[in-house]
Amino acid sequence: MEFTGAHILSIKQFERADIERIFQVADSMEPYALRRRVTRVLEGAILGNMFFEPSTRTRVSFGSAFNLLGGEVRETTGFQSSAIAKGESLYDTARVLSGYSDVICMRHPESGSVAEFAEASRVPVINGGDGANEHPSQALLDLYTIRKELADRGRSIDGLRIAMIGDLKHGRTVHSLCKLLCLYQNVHVTLVSPVELAMPEAVLESMREAGIDVVISQDLANGIGAVDIAYATRIQEERFASKEEANQYRGQFRLNQAIYTQYCEPNTVIMHPLPRDSREDANELDNDLNLNPNLAIFRQADNGVLVRMALFALILNVADQVDKYSREVTWYNGR
Amino acid sequence: MEFTGAHILSIKQFERADIERIFQVADSMEPYALRRRVTRVLEGAILGNMFFEPSTRTRVSFGSAFNLLGGEVRETTGFQSSAIAKGESLYDTARVLSGYSDVICMRHPESGSVAEFAEASRVPVINGGDGANEHPSQALLDLYTIRKELADRGRSIDGLRIAMIGDLKHGRTVHSLCKLLCLYQNVHVTLVSPVELAMPEAVLESMREAGIDVVISQDLANGIGAVDIAYATRIQEERFASKEEANQYRGQFRLNQAIYTQYCEPNTVIMHPLPRDSREDANELDNDLNLNPNLAIFRQADNGVLVRMALFALILNVADQVDKYSREVTWYNGR
Amino acid sequence: MEFTGAHILSIKQFERADIERIFQVADSMEPYALRRRVTRVLEGAILGNMFFEPSTRTRVSFGSAFNLLGGEVRETTGFQSSAIAKGESLYDTARVLSGYSDVICMRHPESGSVAEFAEASRVPVINGGDGANEHPSQALLDLYTIRKELADRGRSIDGLRIAMIGDLKHGRTVHSLCKLLCLYQNVHVTLVSPVELAMPEAVLESMREAGIDVVISQDLANGIGAVDIAYATRIQEERFASKEEANQYRGQFRLNQAIYTQYCEPNTVIMHPLPRDSREDANELDNDLNLNPNLAIFRQADNGVLVRMALFALILNVADQVDKYSREVTWYNGR
Repeated sequence: MEFTGAHILSIKQFERADIERIFQVADSMEPYALRRRVTRVLEGAILGNMFFEPSTRTRVSFGSAFNLLGGEVRETTGFQSSAIAKGESLYDTARVLSGYSDVICMRHPESGSVAEFAEASRVPVINGGDGANEHPSQALLDLYTIRKELADRGRSIDGLRIAMIGDLKHGRTVHSLCKLLCLYQNVHVTLVSPVELAMPEAVLESMREAGIDVVISQDLANGIGAVDIAYATRIQEERFASKEEANQYRGQFRLNQAIYTQYCEPNTVIMHPLPRDSREDANELDNDLNLNPNLAIFRQADNGVLVRMALFALILNVADQVDKYSREVTWYNGR
Repeated sequence: MEFTGAHILSIKQFERADIERIFQVADSMEPYALRRRVTRVLEGAILGNMFFEPSTRTRVSFGSAFNLLGGEVRETTGFQSSAIAKGESLYDTARVLSGYSDVICMRHPESGSVAEFAEASRVPVINGGDGANEHPSQALLDLYTIRKELADRGRSIDGLRIAMIGDLKHGRTVHSLCKLLCLYQNVHVTLVSPVELAMPEAVLESMREAGIDVVISQDLANGIGAVDIAYATRIQEERFASKEEANQYRGQFRLNQAIYTQYCEPNTVIMHPLPRDSREDANELDNDLNLNPNLAIFRQADNGVLVRMALFALILNVADQVDKYSREVTWYNGR
Repeated sequence: MEFTGAHILSIKQFERADIERIFQVADSMEPYALRRRVTRVLEGAILGNMFFEPSTRTRVSFGSAFNLLGGEVRETTGFQSSAIAKGESLYDTARVLSGYSDVICMRHPESGSVAEFAEASRVPVINGGDGANEHPSQALLDLYTIRKELADRGRSIDGLRIAMIGDLKHGRTVHSLCKLLCLYQNVHVTLVSPVELAMPEAVLESMREAGIDVVISQDLANGIGAVDIAYATRIQEERFASKEEANQYRGQFRLNQAIYTQYCEPNTVIMHPLPRDSREDANELDNDLNLNPNLAIFRQADNGVLVRMALFALILNVADQVDKYSREVTWYNGR
């Protein structure tokens, strides 16, 4: 695809080469994200960070990514402050807001809203999550993390063996990740969930069509026994009819250091889209894994900044100029 | 007036020459707002964007305008987070907050509050809307839009024929616009509204005193027949005793493409302060006008950025230095 | 202490020499805070201004301080928008958020939360207030103000005579200030409060151990008669069981110009942590003091910016480079 000026709305718009391009640019962002160097390539540019639904980490991750490229961020958080409440159409909102910035990142509770918004926008729009539909930068950072962790182990995404664990019915991130994996060869996916929270049939179908080897299981020990990646997810309480209904699935597939040691291959990478629910009754990934060097969940969050920097750099067509506008960091950097 | 260091509180403070000066500076901001060039003239300056009442578009418009001049923005949104709830006076709030920035933009639900705040502030204050009272930058951007649209048609504000349509009783923007028009010659204003939502007598008086030709009508077709500008407004539901009371006035004066074609002169400019209520039962300006090149409502919103840049540049006395601190834009610009 | 890379969590971590160092750097920030010069020493750095409890003035003060050093600010305000609601631990929040910035300022309603957060953070953390526990930058700006006001009178903190007035039980700021004063010689403290709102015994003990001369009184006139500083505080309504309970203490120790003239030595400095409750029934510091040049409450707020700039400069190790990256201010500066 042509990135310059493009909207980033769905992972469906990417071919394998596009993803490789994003990841290559993300790699080149590391010195800036780690504060070894500073770049001012987007100095004077403005991101409209429009969050019509709260999400601290995604919002701040996008904002920081833009700041790290030298740009400014104008922001809105929450619905009440919006003219939408006065009957304004998404078309109008888009026409107006796109006059205030060079690129927009938008989160909105309704499926399809960001695409509708993008159609009327005069500047490129990145989907920061539209309800149960898509959250493409999350899917990209997950895949980027898999690629990076495997590379450290001398492997690549082709040939990947991954287990996805937990609420596979409601987990938007695992749906998107499965779709992205369809672009790769020789992938093996094990799906571990309560029967009622199984991966939707449509996603299964896509994977099978793409030649992915899919195994469905309700047995954690077995499911995580021969994989490169164990990808755990949170019971998405907010998508259930009641808290009680959600509670009956809590804690069925807890991963902790003892289970990891007993069942996993050495160096199996542990991932999670975060936030991880660390309350006693949930505890999907035990805190005793925090010192396990294979726990990649925080590297995963860090990778989000790299991938978002890459998306901004590509759609604003400055990927090749980042270094040109760079210099040393002169303040303390403990990382 | 002397702009340097001045508060911008009310349109009453402007003479015609002041408005011409603002518009001339706003014109010069266009290359920056359109991202053809970047200026860093206010690099290091801070705007305190203090919104004690939510308003996404006005807040972001001011913030972006300041960013476009190279400055930083510190912001507050909503009332609850304010020390005012702990019994702090506006005097104290102003003395404290004015220590944090070089200029303040303030919105507040109470009439007169911004002027009271400005009196105690140690930095210039721009009124971003104080209840039903004033919102001077909105009035300026409306008049600026009229001037610009007419100029494209070889006309000027002197001699203007304008129809104002809808809730003329509660519409702060049309009140202010009428007052600004008093500074011009040979102006003809047609006011189309339900009898109960008529323009307040005081505004009518000002216009008549200034020699404006005022016609009052309840007939849309007739009212828009011989004008340069048709300025529609929203039924301001939030100012009525009940939603039901507001509803009885909804949709009485709908403008759509068919009506436009049948009754308006060719190239009549359509304006609206936004947000436009596009819900089925309101629909004051039909979406079928969206492709009509005379629909100026989004150019109007864009002009808000130019006018706000001009106000900042004038009161911080950098209007003549904007170009000096400018350079090329090196990122993608689709506009 | 070594400032570079340090967390600023509690005033307990400072020795007298550390405080002198902070104040010396704060002094050097004055030309930048007064907009006589601009520095870009932190251009490209990001502050994560994480306010999990609202506080406009503290939040904006930290943000502006960082902007004044040339850095960018990413921000969150309020609790609802946080993953903490989904069961995320402070450990996880810290690991994630610390990937987005170079330094974090955090406010949180729970005592001890910021220290817990800091332990997991990969970047330095400044405590912006953790419940009833600590708010070190407030204590520092109070002491800095005392030092500065006394210096103008040819005096120093050693030998200080200060009266603290009002709700000494709940006032976090006076607790911290008392502890800081323990580092100085020959200090005399008079505590004026209703018996029920007396200074906690633990604080009294610390002061006595440090050799501070402590007098306890319920008589305002007597208490403010022979002091350099009269430090008034607000009845902390939100810490009482009911508004009614708080109300019975309101207005018992009101300071106004008449009382000041009758009882205080000439040039006694008046301080207050702000916000001051100016409602009729509270009115702890009367507005008729606003023109009294010894009313230092707004200079106190301004000093907050200097002290916070100093903390940022010290922990990011750029205190000695601020001037090197500085230049003239070219916009209007009325201060």
